[in-house]
Amino acid sequence: MSASTPFQDEAHQHLTAGNVPAYMQALGQAARRAASELRRADTGLKNRALMAMGQRLADARAKILDANTEDLQRGRESGLESALLDRLALNDARIDAMIEGLQQVAGLPDPVGEIGDMRYRPSGIQVGKMRVPLGVIGIIYESRPNVTLEAASLCLKSGNACILRGGSEASQSNAAISACIQAGLADVGLPAGSVQVVATTDRAAVGEMISMPEYVDVIIPRGGKSLIERISRDARVPVIKHLDGVCHVYIDTTADPAKALAIAVNAKTHRYGTCNTMETLLVDAPIADLLLPELARAYAEHEVELRGCQRTQALLPQAAVAEEADWYAEYLAPVLAIKVVDGIDEAIAHIEQYGSHHTDAIVTQDYSLARRFMAEVDSSSVIVNASTRFADGFEYGLGAEIGISTDKLHARGPVGLEGLTTQKYVVFGDGQVRE
Amino acid sequence: MSASTPFQDEAHQHLTAGNVPAYMQALGQAARRAASELRRADTGLKNRALMAMGQRLADARAKILDANTEDLQRGRESGLESALLDRLALNDARIDAMIEGLQQVAGLPDPVGEIGDMRYRPSGIQVGKMRVPLGVIGIIYESRPNVTLEAASLCLKSGNACILRGGSEASQSNAAISACIQAGLADVGLPAGSVQVVATTDRAAVGEMISMPEYVDVIIPRGGKSLIERISRDARVPVIKHLDGVCHVYIDTTADPAKALAIAVNAKTHRYGTCNTMETLLVDAPIADLLLPELARAYAEHEVELRGCQRTQALLPQAAVAEEADWYAEYLAPVLAIKVVDGIDEAIAHIEQYGSHHTDAIVTQDYSLARRFMAEVDSSSVIVNASTRFADGFEYGLGAEIGISTDKLHARGPVGLEGLTTQKYVVFGDGQVRE
Repeated sequence: MSASTPFQDEAHQHLTAGNVPAYMQALGQAARRAASELRRADTGLKNRALMAMGQRLADARAKILDANTEDLQRGRESGLESALLDRLALNDARIDAMIEGLQQVAGLPDPVGEIGDMRYRPSGIQVGKMRVPLGVIGIIYESRPNVTLEAASLCLKSGNACILRGGSEASQSNAAISACIQAGLADVGLPAGSVQVVATTDRAAVGEMISMPEYVDVIIPRGGKSLIERISRDARVPVIKHLDGVCHVYIDTTADPAKALAIAVNAKTHRYGTCNTMETLLVDAPIADLLLPELARAYAEHEVELRGCQRTQALLPQAAVAEEADWYAEYLAPVLAIKVVDGIDEAIAHIEQYGSHHTDAIVTQDYSLARRFMAEVDSSSVIVNASTRFADGFEYGLGAEIGISTDKLHARGPVGLEGLTTQKYVVFGDGQVRE
Repeated sequence: MSASTPFQDEAHQHLTAGNVPAYMQALGQAARRAASELRRADTGLKNRALMAMGQRLADARAKILDANTEDLQRGRESGLESALLDRLALNDARIDAMIEGLQQVAGLPDPVGEIGDMRYRPSGIQVGKMRVPLGVIGIIYESRPNVTLEAASLCLKSGNACILRGGSEASQSNAAISACIQAGLADVGLPAGSVQVVATTDRAAVGEMISMPEYVDVIIPRGGKSLIERISRDARVPVIKHLDGVCHVYIDTTADPAKALAIAVNAKTHRYGTCNTMETLLVDAPIADLLLPELARAYAEHEVELRGCQRTQALLPQAAVAEEADWYAEYLAPVLAIKVVDGIDEAIAHIEQYGSHHTDAIVTQDYSLARRFMAEVDSSSVIVNASTRFADGFEYGLGAEIGISTDKLHARGPVGLEGLTTQKYVVFGDGQVRE
């Protein structure tokens, strides 16, 4: 599709020669160069690139599906489990969703260039902060090929170049999508280095990518906890990471029972495999005998297995014994740990000891307790009287989400376009010097 | 002064037994516990603690000066150079400045708890962001003992616990200041773990401190480039770092010559050893013959050594040849590299290739060039028509400065109280669940 540049040719030669480090360095150099063009690209140009990619995707629909069929066949042959095959599979509806996703990202406000807090200082200078791209973003992900396009579109819209390393099981699909991205970039005259999909399944590529701070400003791993832990441990580049979500709902005695029931059921059963799903329910002792039996009936309808503390078991004989490990567990499954506690202090102490600082909620009608929970629980999302399942970039109005950060520095909680940018100070003077 | 806690006793036993890792772990645990108290401490309590420390400092003035005399004597005996001895030395005026500094920090607005961007979402929940402390901050610094108090006050005001590791040459002074800090904390009932000064000069303490992410949320090294590079390389905890400042001033042809002259002289000669001092001057070719001879006369008065490109030397025969290494140099001395360039494109390209993304300025009367420089130069401070020396927390109105970050993530440029905090999402609902 797009004509290859001398630089891509050079990168490709390294790859053919089996020199993965040199190949990754070449990608890094190309990304760094593209980043300075993207930094100055205006919103209209970036949006036109996104729309052009969508058009190229629509045109190449058959090719993409063929490539995906190859991946699926290879996956079946190598015994990939059916859940993974499902995530890998593309069809017309999924390609439509990818194109629609591009249009949505094009429609989002551009965070780049926004200037805030501009004020005069006693010296006469004006000082403010301007939002600017981070530079080059490396994204490492697993089987779903639509992440390729999603990540590319969010990085591009926020003015960043990106290097994308997808799962080896999706390599043909990712290559076909990459060709559409390259064609779209070429259509509007943006450099090929703006979005580069790593074209080798060699694991050394990841090791190299996370060790070149001169070319990569931040790494965002998307995938299982072990992948993210490994990358965080070995990276010499800052990592925006998303570890586990051991989320709690605490039901205080003053809670409206109907709301408490609805929230506790929704937080557990709306979806089991998501990081913002409740894993431990904390119930204030005075309301436990009223609420727990009714909750247990609702959970039974959803076939949720219950594991409780002694006081829970006294009320719910059907509950298994919760071991110490249960309070730390991110089940990602229809299993729930339940603990009866004596008031908010014990609830907050439990969350601090066992939680993962992801998302925690209180259900209460007591103003002062709501205020305390809000101030004292040190999690990326703290919620009063709503389901933990709301902790999500779309629900929060970010318009898009590249992930949820469990880090404290830079970005915390759902990360949208703004999390892919930083701020620099801008100063306007008229000849001022320091006295 | 303050009664020691069982925890401090335990930490001290480890130290006596020469078990530095166990000692540092004990400090880490105490800091983590103190952090949850500090997170909920209100502004008034934190301010009272700062004022109490000031009072304790005033009361212990003689003890502090005695301890400092010991440090100075040991320093002289071990052949410390005079500049270091000067930074190490305390006197009445410096102690007064420390007390005044505490009062100033008490007077700053408290960033903790500030809620912004609160808005209703279609689901009916309200979502906003609340500013909260980072948790535990580790600060590693060199000879100046007043940094102990400065760092303690900024961390405390921003609701963070801190572990401070000063230079071994200042150990007696730091111990005396630490006793005042501890007494001040005890006066208002804040835990001793809120501020802990590492009581061993063993280098293993630093290695341990930067390797315990379970107890330390961020490390801020303050000192020379080699210290910071070593810590960044070895740390398993995020580091807010301040590497070099290779700052540029670009004088465009349309610049007002008087302003250009004032800014170029001030940016170089106001202070030589600071990171925001200009190290390379870029002059647009058409204005070079008018401006450079006059500038050279001004620099000669300040005995600034000039090193120039060929075109500079044609105009200023007294300038030495600038080698390739000069364009990368952070002289921190009365030396200046000068290059004549052809327009803003060459200037921006030079800054991108050789600069350190710290602070860069343009002097111009051309609106479009100012706008381009502002958007395209990727530095933590970008300045139009003012001296680079303004890149400073106090000049920017942050009220205080714990350092200047040359990182892109989290904090970029001068770091004040806000840079010691993060934001969490807060959600208010009334029983909402995800559909």
